[in-house]
Amino acid sequence: MSFTLSEARAADAADTLRDCRDRFHIPEGLIYLDGNSLGVLPKATIARQNAVIAQEWGEGLIRSWNTADWINLPQRVGAKIAPLIGAKPHEVIATDSTSVNLFKLLCAAARLSDRKTILSESGNFHTDLHIASGVAEMTGLKLDIARREKVENRIGADTNLLLLTHVHYKTAERFDMAAVTAKAKAAGAMTIWDLSHSVGAVPLDLNGTGAELAVGCGYKYLNGGPGAPAFLYVAEHLQEKLGSPLTGWMGHAEPFAFTDDYRPAKGIDRFLAGTPPILGLAALESGIDAFEGATMERLWTKSRAMFDVLHALVEQNCPELVCITPRGEDARGSHISFRHPHAFEICQALIADGVIGDFRAPDVLRFGLTPLYLGFEDLWQAVDRLKRILETESWRDPKFAVRGKVT
Amino acid sequence: MSFTLSEARAADAADTLRDCRDRFHIPEGLIYLDGNSLGVLPKATIARQNAVIAQEWGEGLIRSWNTADWINLPQRVGAKIAPLIGAKPHEVIATDSTSVNLFKLLCAAARLSDRKTILSESGNFHTDLHIASGVAEMTGLKLDIARREKVENRIGADTNLLLLTHVHYKTAERFDMAAVTAKAKAAGAMTIWDLSHSVGAVPLDLNGTGAELAVGCGYKYLNGGPGAPAFLYVAEHLQEKLGSPLTGWMGHAEPFAFTDDYRPAKGIDRFLAGTPPILGLAALESGIDAFEGATMERLWTKSRAMFDVLHALVEQNCPELVCITPRGEDARGSHISFRHPHAFEICQALIADGVIGDFRAPDVLRFGLTPLYLGFEDLWQAVDRLKRILETESWRDPKFAVRGKVT
Repeated sequence: MSFTLSEARAADAADTLRDCRDRFHIPEGLIYLDGNSLGVLPKATIARQNAVIAQEWGEGLIRSWNTADWINLPQRVGAKIAPLIGAKPHEVIATDSTSVNLFKLLCAAARLSDRKTILSESGNFHTDLHIASGVAEMTGLKLDIARREKVENRIGADTNLLLLTHVHYKTAERFDMAAVTAKAKAAGAMTIWDLSHSVGAVPLDLNGTGAELAVGCGYKYLNGGPGAPAFLYVAEHLQEKLGSPLTGWMGHAEPFAFTDDYRPAKGIDRFLAGTPPILGLAALESGIDAFEGATMERLWTKSRAMFDVLHALVEQNCPELVCITPRGEDARGSHISFRHPHAFEICQALIADGVIGDFRAPDVLRFGLTPLYLGFEDLWQAVDRLKRILETESWRDPKFAVRGKVT
Repeated sequence: MSFTLSEARAADAADTLRDCRDRFHIPEGLIYLDGNSLGVLPKATIARQNAVIAQEWGEGLIRSWNTADWINLPQRVGAKIAPLIGAKPHEVIATDSTSVNLFKLLCAAARLSDRKTILSESGNFHTDLHIASGVAEMTGLKLDIARREKVENRIGADTNLLLLTHVHYKTAERFDMAAVTAKAKAAGAMTIWDLSHSVGAVPLDLNGTGAELAVGCGYKYLNGGPGAPAFLYVAEHLQEKLGSPLTGWMGHAEPFAFTDDYRPAKGIDRFLAGTPPILGLAALESGIDAFEGATMERLWTKSRAMFDVLHALVEQNCPELVCITPRGEDARGSHISFRHPHAFEICQALIADGVIGDFRAPDVLRFGLTPLYLGFEDLWQAVDRLKRILETESWRDPKFAVRGKVT
């Protein structure tokens, strides 16, 4: 291979983020290229979760809402996400799932206008389209789904909300957040950004790009653990204008006044609904704390270098794979995807060989680049095994065609 | 005191549920009468959570959705809650918060009728009223709030949904589920029951009483941990008629087909929205597993005996406290509440003396009876300290008047 194993090792030795890898538990012998689906376990999470359970819950019991400051965990975790996305600390809150948060923002923002259309992209991550269709049905709006290349030109006089995922979950294609937000705004529409495949991977500047509303996932690049709480962002100037449809007690101005009437809390807090999930939020906080000292600029620099290496290695060694991720660094996120008619079987054969990537229907092989804990040698070894699987056609073994429930 | 310490100890010695106490971590020297607010930590939760984090997440990573069966946790935990509430295993699912689940059921059920009113009780736990007001606003319905004694007679020709909490969070008053459900049904209205202060404490027979819709909390008597996932129940015959407004991917018929169009899953699964919170669900499962062998009948028998003992001890030793919980065993839940103008300060003085109860505004002192881990001597000791606090008026110390954010 043109990028040699010794070059890969030299790149790792020169990597200024190399020490960060030690913050994570990487299973022995495993090459994990799926941190964009479920991030790996930060070592600190184990001790922290033990303390939350044995001390804060076990010993502190109900008192820990005050003494361990559980009650402010959604705000505290939100404030830690803020610098990763270019937001102010009080513009972000960690709560519920991405789907539920999207529902809140869609309903809340749609009320600000009489326009009747929610516009989104065909092939957007499906929960976004599904939630939008549910909102449309409830509120009498119309969901218009356009192909990616047509979606910007479809913004029209009836467009109420534009709902886009910043980095595409399958192809890693990235929208120009500033340009699209401005274009929608000029046409009188507001944009909601799904940052699930961006946050913690791609530099984001929500304030600088004029983004007003966003949601994002806690269990991918933020390493918050399986089904971690998600987050939502509302630009400061909009917060008092929006009301959540999920008017639960934690979003009340005085949650402990126990009044019949609902009165929304000031600011971002109004987007809370039920009691905060403390175990999940504490794990998410540990995940974000693992970014300590690793700026988004340094992470993105390494991600770009890894992308170039992986792209070149696959191009040279696995010509059957067709890259569907744009090369341009402003046009993509932090994963790389390839088409192959037998992507599923190849993905299974790779897993059996200790390389975990992801299959996305119908024919996509997806590899996540997580510069916090991945090394250049990981990439070299992964392609070395991939090459052998393709050359020997070992993926044709019928055992690799068996489909599980979750793919 | 008339019920003596030795009688209390004898009652503990004769208690057939006494061994269950060992399943829980009870802080040394603490008398915890707040398990109806946040249940105590089951010892098994510590090891289980460690395994979920270090093994299932840390080693298994993304594979654990299949190999550790994460994907079916909402259904599995729901099926374990089912026998505690008299439901079939496939009628219950654990997900999201009580508030969010209530939103789903209110929206879904309201669509089945043209009637315009959601009827509830003034002084109901406020998140229920708040969520109902948000649903009413979104769907063009009216929220009618009636005083408890008038709510049943208010059911009328325009009542679409009746929303009631089975056991009142403050007074512990209990509705007759069968009678109220039948009365509403006869008037053409459907009832949604909030079981938060009943589940795991009071015998429930949702199928037997004809209850069709319910939600409930995982962190009180179920000991699922702070902010544990909640659950929802939909009677089998209604499941295919109801559609969740929160149409997220996990409620899709084929979540991993990645299609633009939403098609609800069969049965209770359609009430899932986002990715299941695995850490929270695993802890909730440990909490429910701690009920092993302790039937609701045995728990309720002990709860009734504890109620009688605590009621008698307070009546005889603390005459300033006015009990607001009904005596009749069919008319109440598993906590007991007293009024006192200085309930807040008394509650704080008790906490300082190692007895944790709860204050509920404006003047209620609330004690939870959790037969799985509380003993009769706990009750005797609690009243002994309460008596001294009242007799010496030690609660007048200004430090007990300081109010925290969470009360």
